Amino acid sequence: MPDALILAAGRGDRMRDQGLIKPLVPFLGVPLLERAMTVLARIGVRRIVVATGWQAEAVSEAARRYGARLGVEVEPVYAPDWERGNGASAAAAAGRFDRPFLLVMCDHLFEPEMLAKLAEQTPPARGLVLAVDRNLSHPLVDWDDVTCVRVEGAAIRAIGKGLPNPDGFDTGAFLLTPEALARLKEERIPSMTELVRRLAEEGRAQAWDASGYFWADLDRPDLLQRAEALWLAKIAGKAHDGPVSRRLNRPISVRLSRWFIRHRIRPMQITWLAFAMSVVAALFVAMPPWWAIAFGGILAQLASIVDGCDGEVARATYQESDYGGWVDAVLDRYADALLLGAMCWHALVHEMAGMSAVAAGLAALSGALINSYTADKYDGWMRKHQKAYRFRLGRDVRVFAFFLACLLDAPMALLVLTAAVMHLENLRRLWVVGR
Amino acid sequence: MPDALILAAGRGDRMRDQGLIKPLVPFLGVPLLERAMTVLARIGVRRIVVATGWQAEAVSEAARRYGARLGVEVEPVYAPDWERGNGASAAAAAGRFDRPFLLVMCDHLFEPEMLAKLAEQTPPARGLVLAVDRNLSHPLVDWDDVTCVRVEGAAIRAIGKGLPNPDGFDTGAFLLTPEALARLKEERIPSMTELVRRLAEEGRAQAWDASGYFWADLDRPDLLQRAEALWLAKIAGKAHDGPVSRRLNRPISVRLSRWFIRHRIRPMQITWLAFAMSVVAALFVAMPPWWAIAFGGILAQLASIVDGCDGEVARATYQESDYGGWVDAVLDRYADALLLGAMCWHALVHEMAGMSAVAAGLAALSGALINSYTADKYDGWMRKHQKAYRFRLGRDVRVFAFFLACLLDAPMALLVLTAAVMHLENLRRLWVVGR
Repeated sequence: MPDALILAAGRGDRMRDQGLIKPLVPFLGVPLLERAMTVLARIGVRRIVVATGWQAEAVSEAARRYGARLGVEVEPVYAPDWERGNGASAAAAAGRFDRPFLLVMCDHLFEPEMLAKLAEQTPPARGLVLAVDRNLSHPLVDWDDVTCVRVEGAAIRAIGKGLPNPDGFDTGAFLLTPEALARLKEERIPSMTELVRRLAEEGRAQAWDASGYFWADLDRPDLLQRAEALWLAKIAGKAHDGPVSRRLNRPISVRLSRWFIRHRIRPMQITWLAFAMSVVAALFVAMPPWWAIAFGGILAQLASIVDGCDGEVARATYQESDYGGWVDAVLDRYADALLLGAMCWHALVHEMAGMSAVAAGLAALSGALINSYTADKYDGWMRKHQKAYRFRLGRDVRVFAFFLACLLDAPMALLVLTAAVMHLENLRRLWVVGR
Repeated sequence: MPDALILAAGRGDRMRDQGLIKPLVPFLGVPLLERAMTVLARIGVRRIVVATGWQAEAVSEAARRYGARLGVEVEPVYAPDWERGNGASAAAAAGRFDRPFLLVMCDHLFEPEMLAKLAEQTPPARGLVLAVDRNLSHPLVDWDDVTCVRVEGAAIRAIGKGLPNPDGFDTGAFLLTPEALARLKEERIPSMTELVRRLAEEGRAQAWDASGYFWADLDRPDLLQRAEALWLAKIAGKAHDGPVSRRLNRPISVRLSRWFIRHRIRPMQITWLAFAMSVVAALFVAMPPWWAIAFGGILAQLASIVDGCDGEVARATYQESDYGGWVDAVLDRYADALLLGAMCWHALVHEMAGMSAVAAGLAALSGALINSYTADKYDGWMRKHQKAYRFRLGRDVRVFAFFLACLLDAPMALLVLTAAVMHLENLRRLWVVGR
């Protein structure tokens, strides 16, 4: 994996008006510079040079701190004439690389996979590769500000703002040769755009198609807001989200997650909050009056929504951990057991459903828990065989049915339905995986 | 991974008396030649030469059949003067290898890991590496027949049957250079032992220490019998076997497994047999009389023993599959649910334990199922941190407690105990993995 250069020298005039140092502005709770460094560290970059300019002291200090935590080597370099443009900032790093390296803008957001793929390209001798997004309907692009490119085959033919008939956008991610970097310095080229233009004339500027990957230029505060929502929505959905999760829970949990991130609430705290809500829900469901069971049902459904936030917050702020995911899963099983147990209790004590309530309760409880037990293997199998779910029967559907049954005050119907559907689904899974 | 040569030319006089072709004699249901080829294919060998002699036609045909199924290239070669000894048999393969290769005796049993490690060694120029077991108390060695070696450092100094003061045993597994093989032919060396002796004089015979790996020379029918029991006992134990499994279930299931293998019963059939036994056990437990619940308890414990056989048979006959293991695990959960459900029913209906039976039943059922849900992750964590279990609370302990409670006709005690112990264990797991 190549080394990398992050350009973090600019003032970001539009943001400075808000009293902010651009590289340290948080995006979903993580400063832009830390985010860029984390993404590079994730794809295996071990050495990062950070070009600083405005507020160099604060930015360098932050870069060193992030680097120490990520376990990567950090070299801040001060670019004295950073005000001339991003080319002049990059020039300060000349001589610090001896093979092609990744160059990214600090105020851009990139999916890790995009940079990993870009790093695999081979730049032309003494030239560069620019990641170009050919999807001209990018939702976050500001047409007045974006740099456009025209390409022929893999070669860049023209570049500039307001270019007529563009083929794609400059994403702000480069794979640069040391010679191209040296040229920035020798020829005092003010901007990366101008460097690309000169190299393009010599056939040394190549475009690599980055269409389909998520990236964004977060130059303006309002773009930053919109990008947060889009980015969270993108990472929130899991391949095996069920229908209720996709249509009801996720759209709400994504909004909640932004609130949690802004208030620095950690994923594990959200996990326990959701569990506590389920415990309280079970207590209400076990009580006799209709309003209590209805309230319990609503609370259980809310807990199911909140339960989606821990994963979203973890992924958005790079706090994912196997342990966190496991605790979440185990507490979900406890929540399931408590809710179904409370429902069985309600049917038995308050509705005098007798032995049939006990039988249905035991069957529903075992069906639901064994359903979760079979889920890992089943999902793995679906992934391996690249099958799409038509309708995944998981916890989202189960809790939603529970919620409806509480509103309708129909505990026996829920227990019988859960038992029947879950056991049939378990048998179906055993059968389809075995075929 | 190197290619391999299997010596399958000998007559095996002691076995022939029983009318058997030695390479085709089944060991735990799998013919010796198929077993040797399977082990080689497992460690990544892609081309196997089989030296044949006595009954060459039948042996070659079998080798081709096994090779086709294993997806390895097979070259049978007929050794016309195989009766002179195993050196003469091996000589028939001269010219068929252009780099060092594994040489194994067909009538020997080897653990795959042992051959994989041997394949990683580097033989001396034009020499060989012999796997030597320095554990002189090997339970299957026939001192009148075994070939002994004396070593100095890594160099073999002397070799032969009845050698005084030996340092170890010749295991029958070699890593041989093509030049050493050619020499067998050129100098008409009758036996591998004689080849080792000549190379040792020139400092070209190295010993590799195979102590600790399982291997056996199955030259005599009675050794074969004893080796079956030892081998099965070795592969039966899982690292996370609980105390009841280790001391009670495994010793019995190993004997049962040999019976299942001899009668060609497949692992999946055993899985379903054990489940059916649990279903019948649950029916008896749900009945009122003492003898019924006691009989149900005994049947449940027997089912738990039979349930260990599917894995043993699968491993002994190379029929392991992820799917088989998964079905076994899911049916175990169903058996757990049925047995605890039946116990709850018994307490409720026949002992009039009332609401406390329902509460205890739901708690025991959820505790046991969530215990299995947490087991995978917990066992993985224990393995990763190389911790030994002091006392693993798993299904073996649970079913044994169930069995005792049935004999004592104490359903409520079992439900309360299961609920308390399982939930505490689940919390403990969450806690220790998180530390």
